[in-house]
Amino acid sequence: MAFQTSAENRFFEDYVPGSVHEFSGVSLDESEMIDFARRYDPQPFHTDPEAAKGSVYGGLIASGWMTAGLMMRLFVEHYLPVGASLGSPGVDELRWLKPVRPGDSLLLRVTVSKTKRSRTKPDRGIVHSYIEVLNQNREVAMTMKAMNLILCRQAV
Amino acid sequence: MAFQTSAENRFFEDYVPGSVHEFSGVSLDESEMIDFARRYDPQPFHTDPEAAKGSVYGGLIASGWMTAGLMMRLFVEHYLPVGASLGSPGVDELRWLKPVRPGDSLLLRVTVSKTKRSRTKPDRGIVHSYIEVLNQNREVAMTMKAMNLILCRQAV
Repeated sequence: MAFQTSAENRFFEDYVPGSVHEFSGVSLDESEMIDFARRYDPQPFHTDPEAAKGSVYGGLIASGWMTAGLMMRLFVEHYLPVGASLGSPGVDELRWLKPVRPGDSLLLRVTVSKTKRSRTKPDRGIVHSYIEVLNQNREVAMTMKAMNLILCRQAV
Repeated sequence: MAFQTSAENRFFEDYVPGSVHEFSGVSLDESEMIDFARRYDPQPFHTDPEAAKGSVYGGLIASGWMTAGLMMRLFVEHYLPVGASLGSPGVDELRWLKPVRPGDSLLLRVTVSKTKRSRTKPDRGIVHSYIEVLNQNREVAMTMKAMNLILCRQAV
């Protein structure tokens, strides 16, 4: 199910509980994986292809935080409203279920779980979303529960 | 409380429930914040200092995923064992409590919450950690519950 509104004209009211949105895609190359890991997650199975061969993963895998970052880029580019996004208080149950490897291509599936208007600030609400990151074989590599503060089109 | 072992000789047994470890520090500069956000979280309050002034945050703030990445770097450099870390199944209750801004300096406080040996794989266990990221004023900017698979020094 697609949004009925463009990202520029999207508000809290456009997030319909139960609706599912799918967005492709972003590809990973080894050099970006290593660059990210050197800066933010310098474990050998993320930074060193040779050392990674001897690890439990049998080869280089992306930092889970890089997978989260790539997820976020798709989430921002396709799902969040452009002007009405006010940030996020946090996420729950982030799970890395399957290693992400060089050459993998990721897509994002987002289900609107529930929406709730703020009691104290009538111009906004929280959208709860269930996020799945799928690889090119449609295996689920990562899941997460997101919360996003979003402005309403019409305050009540 | 400091570890009794170096990171190179650290195993599951060295993570003592209730122990608290503090590690400083990493500073943020605006250009890295913008670089990260352009690639992984291109929202105006993360990428554009001028647009950010007019946002709810009143100025540029770091992507929460960059704060998580910097947390992870400190976590890898100081807390995880060098050879015995087997990765993580995920994290819970990640919360961004206070904006992180250019020039902020972050430190990491980690409390070992509980540890549990694997029932099926006697060579490893899971360490549960409560992570707090503090800024230079010791305000808590981010919290998170981590799980890490770590090899045991001695299998039972």
